[in-house]
Amino acid sequence: MEGVDHLAFERNKAEFDVDAMKIVWAGSSHAFEVSDRMSRLVASDPAFKKDHRPMLGRKELFKGTLKKAAYAWKRIIELRLSEEEASMLRSFVDEPAFTDLHWGMFIPAIKGQGTDEQQQKWLPLAQKMQIIGCYAQTELGHGSNVQGLETTATFDPKTDEFVIHSPTLTSSKWWPGGLGKISTHAVVYARLITDGQDHGVHGFIVQLRSLDDHLPLPGITVGDIGMKFGNGAYNTMDNGVLRFEHVRIPRDQMLMRVSRITREGKYVQSNVPRQLVYGTMVYVRQTIVSDASTAMSRAVCIATRYSAVRRQFGGSNGGLESQVIDYKTQQARLFPLLASAYAFRFVGEWLKWLYTDVMKRLQANDFSTLPEAHACTAGLKSLTTSATADGIEECRKLCGGHGYLCTSGLPELFAVYVPTCTYEGDNIVLLLQVARYLMKIISQLGSGKKPVGTTAYMGRVAQLMESQSDVQKAEDWLNPNAVLGAFEARAARKSVACAKNLSKFIEKLQQDIPGKGVKHQLEILCSIYALFHLHKHLGDFLSTGCITPKQGALANDQLRSLYSQVRPNAIALVDAFNYTDHYLSSILGCYDGNVYPKLYEAAWKDPLNDSVVPDGFQEYIRPMLKQQLRNARL
Amino acid sequence: MEGVDHLAFERNKAEFDVDAMKIVWAGSSHAFEVSDRMSRLVASDPAFKKDHRPMLGRKELFKGTLKKAAYAWKRIIELRLSEEEASMLRSFVDEPAFTDLHWGMFIPAIKGQGTDEQQQKWLPLAQKMQIIGCYAQTELGHGSNVQGLETTATFDPKTDEFVIHSPTLTSSKWWPGGLGKISTHAVVYARLITDGQDHGVHGFIVQLRSLDDHLPLPGITVGDIGMKFGNGAYNTMDNGVLRFEHVRIPRDQMLMRVSRITREGKYVQSNVPRQLVYGTMVYVRQTIVSDASTAMSRAVCIATRYSAVRRQFGGSNGGLESQVIDYKTQQARLFPLLASAYAFRFVGEWLKWLYTDVMKRLQANDFSTLPEAHACTAGLKSLTTSATADGIEECRKLCGGHGYLCTSGLPELFAVYVPTCTYEGDNIVLLLQVARYLMKIISQLGSGKKPVGTTAYMGRVAQLMESQSDVQKAEDWLNPNAVLGAFEARAARKSVACAKNLSKFIEKLQQDIPGKGVKHQLEILCSIYALFHLHKHLGDFLSTGCITPKQGALANDQLRSLYSQVRPNAIALVDAFNYTDHYLSSILGCYDGNVYPKLYEAAWKDPLNDSVVPDGFQEYIRPMLKQQLRNARL
Repeated sequence: MEGVDHLAFERNKAEFDVDAMKIVWAGSSHAFEVSDRMSRLVASDPAFKKDHRPMLGRKELFKGTLKKAAYAWKRIIELRLSEEEASMLRSFVDEPAFTDLHWGMFIPAIKGQGTDEQQQKWLPLAQKMQIIGCYAQTELGHGSNVQGLETTATFDPKTDEFVIHSPTLTSSKWWPGGLGKISTHAVVYARLITDGQDHGVHGFIVQLRSLDDHLPLPGITVGDIGMKFGNGAYNTMDNGVLRFEHVRIPRDQMLMRVSRITREGKYVQSNVPRQLVYGTMVYVRQTIVSDASTAMSRAVCIATRYSAVRRQFGGSNGGLESQVIDYKTQQARLFPLLASAYAFRFVGEWLKWLYTDVMKRLQANDFSTLPEAHACTAGLKSLTTSATADGIEECRKLCGGHGYLCTSGLPELFAVYVPTCTYEGDNIVLLLQVARYLMKIISQLGSGKKPVGTTAYMGRVAQLMESQSDVQKAEDWLNPNAVLGAFEARAARKSVACAKNLSKFIEKLQQDIPGKGVKHQLEILCSIYALFHLHKHLGDFLSTGCITPKQGALANDQLRSLYSQVRPNAIALVDAFNYTDHYLSSILGCYDGNVYPKLYEAAWKDPLNDSVVPDGFQEYIRPMLKQQLRNARL
Repeated sequence: MEGVDHLAFERNKAEFDVDAMKIVWAGSSHAFEVSDRMSRLVASDPAFKKDHRPMLGRKELFKGTLKKAAYAWKRIIELRLSEEEASMLRSFVDEPAFTDLHWGMFIPAIKGQGTDEQQQKWLPLAQKMQIIGCYAQTELGHGSNVQGLETTATFDPKTDEFVIHSPTLTSSKWWPGGLGKISTHAVVYARLITDGQDHGVHGFIVQLRSLDDHLPLPGITVGDIGMKFGNGAYNTMDNGVLRFEHVRIPRDQMLMRVSRITREGKYVQSNVPRQLVYGTMVYVRQTIVSDASTAMSRAVCIATRYSAVRRQFGGSNGGLESQVIDYKTQQARLFPLLASAYAFRFVGEWLKWLYTDVMKRLQANDFSTLPEAHACTAGLKSLTTSATADGIEECRKLCGGHGYLCTSGLPELFAVYVPTCTYEGDNIVLLLQVARYLMKIISQLGSGKKPVGTTAYMGRVAQLMESQSDVQKAEDWLNPNAVLGAFEARAARKSVACAKNLSKFIEKLQQDIPGKGVKHQLEILCSIYALFHLHKHLGDFLSTGCITPKQGALANDQLRSLYSQVRPNAIALVDAFNYTDHYLSSILGCYDGNVYPKLYEAAWKDPLNDSVVPDGFQEYIRPMLKQQLRNARL
């Protein structure tokens, strides 16, 4: 049956131009072209095979990752790939590795916090991978609260060196990826101490391992912190533990762009704004939001395709059972997630713009939009990653029992994804920051200070506190202003900002979008996203009096009608993500829908099936069956 | 620091008698004594060590499970353990194994569906483990819809045999635990066909493997279906795939208690009520609800203890940071889960009574309460398992980054637990069944038919449709009748029954409960359980007009005050679960709270730390660092 498209009948139902939607999803024709080319390059190369990952023991798994990383780097050099292409290729290899931290944290840290001199010295080494670096911030006892870090960097004016030290067990660096077994260097965050004075946390470049024999340098204890959630998943990464026993580094290895220590041990601030670090934070969180849409869309792609393949109940007299995707309960769980994937994509695009804007302003010493940008990215990071983690698990459940098999691709996707809710700002801590910011905005309203950017609507708070929705018919809920109005009114009254994804989605729809039916599909998804959340938070809307119970019921009516409109387009909408079978690595979500023969075939590849009688049978099972356990050595 | 109790200062805060609470939790002094003794027996025996599980490859992992199962059986025989003790011991071994299905499904199926003759023949063999059995129902293409199974059992009157056959790929048996590599026999569900007529799905005892060499018998293809979600977790189980190629079994291997085939091939119903099968279903679901409280309490125990150990933010001038458990946001997430663990415990106890009651009635041919019992267990299975799966993951997040480490115990607990939402009735499918039942009850109200059991309140529907909550102060929400009234009114209006856990909790509190402060603690937890859910489903309460927005706000005020009351008792409340460190297998949740040294020590046990320079460095990393990749063989 190779080559037969078992979902062709679904694709034929689509009412829009899938190729045009692929461009919308990718962001531009150029982005689509690069992404499409790189994903095919990876998918077609057997060296990047990944479906055996869950079966490997830790050592084999890790060795495989080292091999893939080296091979990918070799290909990048051979094919003279651009930075954009190389980064895209790495993301399609789809395996957490030390290179993620090297390229994504170590190099950016030097770029952002190093002086020009430091950049000239270290960047070429790192960019040629003559050294490999990681980012050593989190400690065993200190995560969210960076200011609580315990590692010290004490300046010794006699030798013109810093002494890096781990004074307690809880000060051990713990979690940094790439640290455990591979990195030769690290950017280490430590309390800067000069002449008995604590200047707070700063970054230092510290060599960890010999470039000769890879052994840890004197005074350095380093290792892997052990297994993490899931099969394969993040266990390909050597998250590490690191302790310093009075390790000395030259003074010029403190990252000195913002502040520095003179030869005499004097602490001097440069005229570079300290706020630059927030710019980096906006950048990192923007990529996290964009990754959320990627992870959500992968899970949705798998669940949607398998829901069209799978049949259950409803068949009479030996006829085919009904496709699961035709059940209203399945649609009501699946389609809001599909809509969320698109919503997160568009808010991610907008965050890219926000980052550019913030950086431009910072360079002109304009810090006015920074608090708002900071609160906004914190809120969006928290909201999109929590929704995505839950969404992946919901997609797994939507696949029934088979979603529990590793070959569904969903267990590994979930296990790899969930730490996103914790790192780069724990989601709950971030929401508290947002809440604090909003309280401040509200307290300043009286003094006439005007809220900016995404909180501009708070300026109309008096009006919003009074507003009553004028929705009268179910279709009235399709009007973006009616929906946005209700969300703004609720946000103003509850003082929480979560209308952001929605407004970005609505904004996107005010643009011209080419391709038959594409814009219409996005309008449907936008309405689903809005009304699903209105339904989910109905208590807030009702208790703050923004809408009436009657209007809430109408929103539900409208939602049901929208689900029916998505149904014929569901497969095409996930095809528009343009994911290869290699990338998805899910039998349930394979493009051609030929699920069951593939599941059956894959089962036999489990190591347990290497022999008909399993290892252990003779020692443990036979004596039991033969009632000879008493004499068995166990 | 061995032997020091780092949580002693927390235990000293407790305002109730922990030992008395342990009895309440266990259900009786007897239950406590057996459970305590068995858990210590397992925890103190090095043969039952389990903390290395996540690091093992599939084969090693599985071999270890076989060894433990044989050793456990040996101990059970040596110590002449009772059935109750043996089953308790197996549950504390805490490792899914083929024995679960042998004792939990294969033997009960023969007991429930076999004739007296069949029971006399097969039960002794099974109970001595001279044969090992599994329960082969689910097929590759057929899960929830049992009536859609495709496997056939065709009677051949010439030879007096059934021919068991898998006519399609999707008819392959798929998922049964213990089937893959170990079971010698199975109860196989197949469509019974006589003389061209299809009599629907029936059970058959089929031998799968030779009792000599363990090889599959002719016509039988059998193997493991491969890796499942998580490290260790359910991968200790050989969930299997099974196909039949016209396999012949004697006629007397059809389970014939309810219906049978005569020598001539005639299909005959016995006078045993077919409804007996529902009794079994009530039994299985009762154990699932009881297991939900166990899993939830394990996760809560870990998260509560670690929340008392962990400090973050709030320390000034080098002072200790605040304990995470003192943050209101942490309490608002953690304490409702603690309350849920207790709520599920009590509803589980009540379900045990319900099962006994249903069986008694069935034997007296009284089927009147069956539909209600069926709907009720379906709803409770769905509600408690979904809440528990979500609750475990929430507990993992409540532990911050370290919850992502396997040594936290939470990843494996989650991965082992989640299939419960799917098996024995997919949770969403079950809720639809409940909804259908409630619709029926409502449609019959007009005809004067009185609803029974848990739906008795529907008889007062007219009154409930009109009722308005008379809560005026926050404390009014502590009155059980006020809360139950609001839930019943909402249930009547939304036609969903989920006030069950609550009413069982309230019922429990009307009994006398000995031990200083024990009853008071349970009252607090009961109120938290109630008001948390009122808060969570506020939209329902407001849109159906049961309570006013003002009353909703008062419930929130009361909830916050209740959290403060739980705080000093939190550690003692989880100590009352009486879990050994072995059973919890969580460094974060260890009894003495000495978390960080243990985490640090455990890290070095990862296989990656066997060598300082990892396997793969010479081949893949050195050539990269030395810029010699071009010539490397990759």
